[in-house]
Amino acid sequence: MSHDIQDIPRYVTELAKASKAASLPLGRATDAERIAAVRAMAQELRARTGEILAANAQDMEAARAAGTSEGLLDRLLLTPDRIEGMAAGLEALAGLPDPVGRVLEHRTISEGLDLTRVSVPLGLVAMVYEARPNVTSDAAGICIRTGNACILRGGSIAQRSCVAIAHALADAVEAQGFPREAVSIIETTDRAATGALMGLRGIVDVLIPRGGAGLISRCVREAQVPVIETGTGNCHIYVHESADFDKARAIVMNAKTQRVGVCNAAESLLVDEAVAPAFLPLILRDLAGAGVTIHGDAAASAVAEADSVVGERFVPAVEEDWDREYLALEMSVKCVSGLDEAIAHINAHGTHHSEAIVAEDREACERFLAEVDAAAVYANASTRFTDGGEFGLGAEIGISTQKLHARGPFAAEALTTYKYEIRGAGQIRP
Amino acid sequence: MSHDIQDIPRYVTELAKASKAASLPLGRATDAERIAAVRAMAQELRARTGEILAANAQDMEAARAAGTSEGLLDRLLLTPDRIEGMAAGLEALAGLPDPVGRVLEHRTISEGLDLTRVSVPLGLVAMVYEARPNVTSDAAGICIRTGNACILRGGSIAQRSCVAIAHALADAVEAQGFPREAVSIIETTDRAATGALMGLRGIVDVLIPRGGAGLISRCVREAQVPVIETGTGNCHIYVHESADFDKARAIVMNAKTQRVGVCNAAESLLVDEAVAPAFLPLILRDLAGAGVTIHGDAAASAVAEADSVVGERFVPAVEEDWDREYLALEMSVKCVSGLDEAIAHINAHGTHHSEAIVAEDREACERFLAEVDAAAVYANASTRFTDGGEFGLGAEIGISTQKLHARGPFAAEALTTYKYEIRGAGQIRP
Repeated sequence: MSHDIQDIPRYVTELAKASKAASLPLGRATDAERIAAVRAMAQELRARTGEILAANAQDMEAARAAGTSEGLLDRLLLTPDRIEGMAAGLEALAGLPDPVGRVLEHRTISEGLDLTRVSVPLGLVAMVYEARPNVTSDAAGICIRTGNACILRGGSIAQRSCVAIAHALADAVEAQGFPREAVSIIETTDRAATGALMGLRGIVDVLIPRGGAGLISRCVREAQVPVIETGTGNCHIYVHESADFDKARAIVMNAKTQRVGVCNAAESLLVDEAVAPAFLPLILRDLAGAGVTIHGDAAASAVAEADSVVGERFVPAVEEDWDREYLALEMSVKCVSGLDEAIAHINAHGTHHSEAIVAEDREACERFLAEVDAAAVYANASTRFTDGGEFGLGAEIGISTQKLHARGPFAAEALTTYKYEIRGAGQIRP
Repeated sequence: MSHDIQDIPRYVTELAKASKAASLPLGRATDAERIAAVRAMAQELRARTGEILAANAQDMEAARAAGTSEGLLDRLLLTPDRIEGMAAGLEALAGLPDPVGRVLEHRTISEGLDLTRVSVPLGLVAMVYEARPNVTSDAAGICIRTGNACILRGGSIAQRSCVAIAHALADAVEAQGFPREAVSIIETTDRAATGALMGLRGIVDVLIPRGGAGLISRCVREAQVPVIETGTGNCHIYVHESADFDKARAIVMNAKTQRVGVCNAAESLLVDEAVAPAFLPLILRDLAGAGVTIHGDAAASAVAEADSVVGERFVPAVEEDWDREYLALEMSVKCVSGLDEAIAHINAHGTHHSEAIVAEDREACERFLAEVDAAAVYANASTRFTDGGEFGLGAEIGISTQKLHARGPFAAEALTTYKYEIRGAGQIRP
């Protein structure tokens, strides 16, 4: 499937330059033209279902032969329903309000100059992702909708599927009168291609990694282009001494077990010493009963000794546990002396994603919300709500754990920047 | 002046950690408390004028002994008036509307959860700068006003002055009940300190370099922490065939010569072939008459041959001239076939700072404004207007040439991010 590419950096650079050039006509296009393009992309996906499924079958066969886990195979698998879902996702983008061309400010400045601050596309968006082929159409769709070109880099395991999808989308975009390079995909599985992409300062306007912690930290460390860091979540639930135990148990169980492989799942439980003797036996039994392995401190250990159900799922916590994102039925458990220690622990060990307090004491809640340094801070609710859909943003691109540009769940608007347009009649600065 | 510091990375890390910790009480402080702090900083500067001037005299003496240029010595010099100017600058910050705690959104989301998106300080801001000691108080003031702690790194040449100013400011902040580490300064001139600072992921929330191209490109290349790239400007004036020659001459001369050492000064002149025979002799004579060296193409060379005033200031342009930011009485001059070539040339060689077209043709102006990829795009006005003060932003921190977070002149608001605060009553995700 991969082209026979000798010089990877040169190949990636040329592809990205062509894609960047394609961003110009997209940036000039009207809202209606960009809507027509994403609709055409949806139609083309449907028309090419057979071809895409055939490519996916080859990926699946190779992945099975390589002994890939069932979970990963499921992420890789495409079906007619899943392709229809991708097409429907593209059509939903048509209904999105246009984030481009919004007048953010308009006023007269010195010497009577007319200044307008207007939202514009970023230009060329690079997305690097892993096993899910559907990210190809999600990413391309949101970029085209927002007037950006994209250069895509799918996971090796999904290469044939991603390329088949991208080719269909590029054909659709071309038929609408845009350069086909507006949807570009890197057609080699060589890892050097990702490195080359990350170095394209002045060509790639933003790089968005969507995947596991390894991919994201590689991008953050190595990239010379701007990155929107997404996704890792070492999220805490802190049970304050004033907590309603029923709420606390429901929130902890929901945040830990409702879906374990996601970044907004809880990984660590903090409990006030004052209520630990009463609360820990209840919650640790709940967790152990749901199959959760508990990495606990001394107080949790005492409960494990007294309760064999808990004991079977108990492991003494080591220092590294406070920093682990398990993404599995595992949780670290620690007692704290109170709100101050809880906030300090979270700010030291969290990943600034989603953090929750359970407390009836309103002042404790407000201090927690104000002082915990995270994209989303909760009082008496599950961290699982941190999601573009739940927040009503629509078409989430990812969840940013950085502070600049976009923080928390982000959508189309994060693919825009702004420019100042100044219209004069010959003014010079005195 | 410098402490006897053995382990630079450790020293910088400990200082930054203390400064980050100091950001918490600042983040909790009310608007009135932060206003009181910047007013106290102004008072303390005035009270310590003698001490600061004494430190500056030592810097000046060492700089003179080292054969420092007059221009640099002037940037380094402090006087009672300049210190009063710094104090007045701090007091002006008191009048700034509070960018922190603004409710950016407030709505009810799924399960009846109450969501508020609120602006919050970034946390710890690192500023790296060069010879001007006044940046110490400008930077510290804007950080304290916006609820951020700062860690400052002044130029070696200004080290004694910067440290004296920072100590006065830290004393003032401490007297107002904040940790003095809220205004921290690196007290060694060892270059390794800058490298250490740039690596402090998770401690430094943003690094803002203020200085020349060398400093900025080092930060962009080496920093592991988020950077706001500022300042380099290879700005163009493009004279369209429909241009009013009087306006064009005034704008070119203003943009090139009104102040040469600044990032919004023009460095390159593009002229439509159609009007080059009529326009070039006029503008090249203007430029040469003002002492500007012209790095010109063949058409400019022809003018230089015919006009000895121009000829004396003429050098044939080489390819690198299209990418040079002279920051001096020098300008590159090139003829283009029309609007398309001008836009393509600017997008290829510009630094996305400030770009101008001079044209009476409205359609040409609008295409230029839309298609040139820069923070500020001008029709019929000088690029010299790109400035926080001219744009009415007040208290400019710098001019960003990146697209994420802040673009163009940026002020206090760029030192904030936002967080989502979600208040519930025990909600879990279904």
